[in-house]
Amino acid sequence: MRRPDLTITSPSNSRVKELVALRRRRVRDAERVMLVEGVHEAGLAVDSGARVRSLFYCPELTPDVDREVASSLVDRVRSSGVETIRLSRPAFEKAAYREGPDGILVVAESVDRTLAELVRSIGEAPLILVSEGVEKPGNLGAMLRTADAAGVSAVIAADPVTDWSNPNVVRASKGTVFSVPVAAASMSETLAWLRGRGIRTVATTPDTDLLHTDADLTGPVAILMGTEKEGLTDETLAAVDVRVRIPMSGLVNSLNVATAAAIVLYEAVRQRR
Amino acid sequence: MRRPDLTITSPSNSRVKELVALRRRRVRDAERVMLVEGVHEAGLAVDSGARVRSLFYCPELTPDVDREVASSLVDRVRSSGVETIRLSRPAFEKAAYREGPDGILVVAESVDRTLAELVRSIGEAPLILVSEGVEKPGNLGAMLRTADAAGVSAVIAADPVTDWSNPNVVRASKGTVFSVPVAAASMSETLAWLRGRGIRTVATTPDTDLLHTDADLTGPVAILMGTEKEGLTDETLAAVDVRVRIPMSGLVNSLNVATAAAIVLYEAVRQRR
Repeated sequence: MRRPDLTITSPSNSRVKELVALRRRRVRDAERVMLVEGVHEAGLAVDSGARVRSLFYCPELTPDVDREVASSLVDRVRSSGVETIRLSRPAFEKAAYREGPDGILVVAESVDRTLAELVRSIGEAPLILVSEGVEKPGNLGAMLRTADAAGVSAVIAADPVTDWSNPNVVRASKGTVFSVPVAAASMSETLAWLRGRGIRTVATTPDTDLLHTDADLTGPVAILMGTEKEGLTDETLAAVDVRVRIPMSGLVNSLNVATAAAIVLYEAVRQRR
Repeated sequence: MRRPDLTITSPSNSRVKELVALRRRRVRDAERVMLVEGVHEAGLAVDSGARVRSLFYCPELTPDVDREVASSLVDRVRSSGVETIRLSRPAFEKAAYREGPDGILVVAESVDRTLAELVRSIGEAPLILVSEGVEKPGNLGAMLRTADAAGVSAVIAADPVTDWSNPNVVRASKGTVFSVPVAAASMSETLAWLRGRGIRTVATTPDTDLLHTDADLTGPVAILMGTEKEGLTDETLAAVDVRVRIPMSGLVNSLNVATAAAIVLYEAVRQRR
């Protein structure tokens, strides 16, 4: 490992304080950055195209088994011209947001785009996933993993409670938050944008007779998922082109929202082959 | 609420100590019981057919918003002839395994059956899910929710690292661990049992050209899922009838195992309609 650009030993150093401040969504939004912590996650982020602004590391905190991977990650980031900053153990422990930090923390450029910016990322017949009012970062991250695997053109968080830069979204997404184009917007803007681009809107809801496997999911199409508890709002259900349901035969009748998204997205993949 | 069968105030009471001991898998296995904690979860369990042996409650710990539901649950269980035991706050806090207990803890009969016992639960053309070597309780619970929704005949945990009575399996399953027939067995026993009953075995693996949507998933069929990291073992892959893969077009190329199970199970549902 070559020498770091900078070494910080004091936990009260201003760079450490800046990192602590980035735990707050407001600060991340203002600076348009996100945090990625952990050897494995930061590696996935870099591999998936994250634009890294700075990398902080502390080899003393890295478990032996991860040391080689961590060291090569630091080298790779540094040789791409990005600043790498070595922190003392007390400084890193203050900066880390995780319990039991492993000595790697990355500040990357925020991934979310406006709908206008998204246009450049989607092709002729896009398959888009829209998640309305999503609350749980884990669900948003899980939907991203599926969206990545299914080759989805973009994921839009409409009226989200959580945000794309939430560290738990990043963690649950396993790097895919950097590989799948994502945007955030209000639901009304999203619907207007989809309509304006000739993209059919397909809402998933229990309150319809049409099964998702009987709907046409080819061509330019957006799959809309609501929250796990409440589903899509009445306004949204009234505004879409098609309403479909996933057949459920169990006693409990509730699929996890990310699972439901996977089932409909992969039916679209099947139809589009 | 009527009067409890029994009231325990001392945390050192033997019934409280018995509850604490049930946190250990060995003890649960020996007594063939499982624990369900929480107003909402216990309610789901009872609604889904859990055979309750005893219910412990402590109204002082129940949040106001859940009090009515908790009280009616206690009444319902008591009127079915099951013993209900009121604990003092210190006694309940000692017995509870959760952080921030809400005053409801149920001891229910273990749900897992032997393969021989499972025969009575499956019909002519069963759709069975086999999870080999599953480690994470959350994944097993998530697979159960999907299995319930998809109308799966049974879920078999083969060579599992976790077990059906793990409190986190119960929690993640949202009650479905009580509604879907489940069993645990070694993988070799499972394969022999499936073969003996004329049930085709379909393994999911990235190392094949056959897409899951091109395989015949009608008739008596078992879908086999491996672990998220390693997939199915080579022995299992060599022993099955058919190997299928889920198409993946992303950078990261890894679906969560419960998501992958959902995609294949719902393709089976589509083909079997």
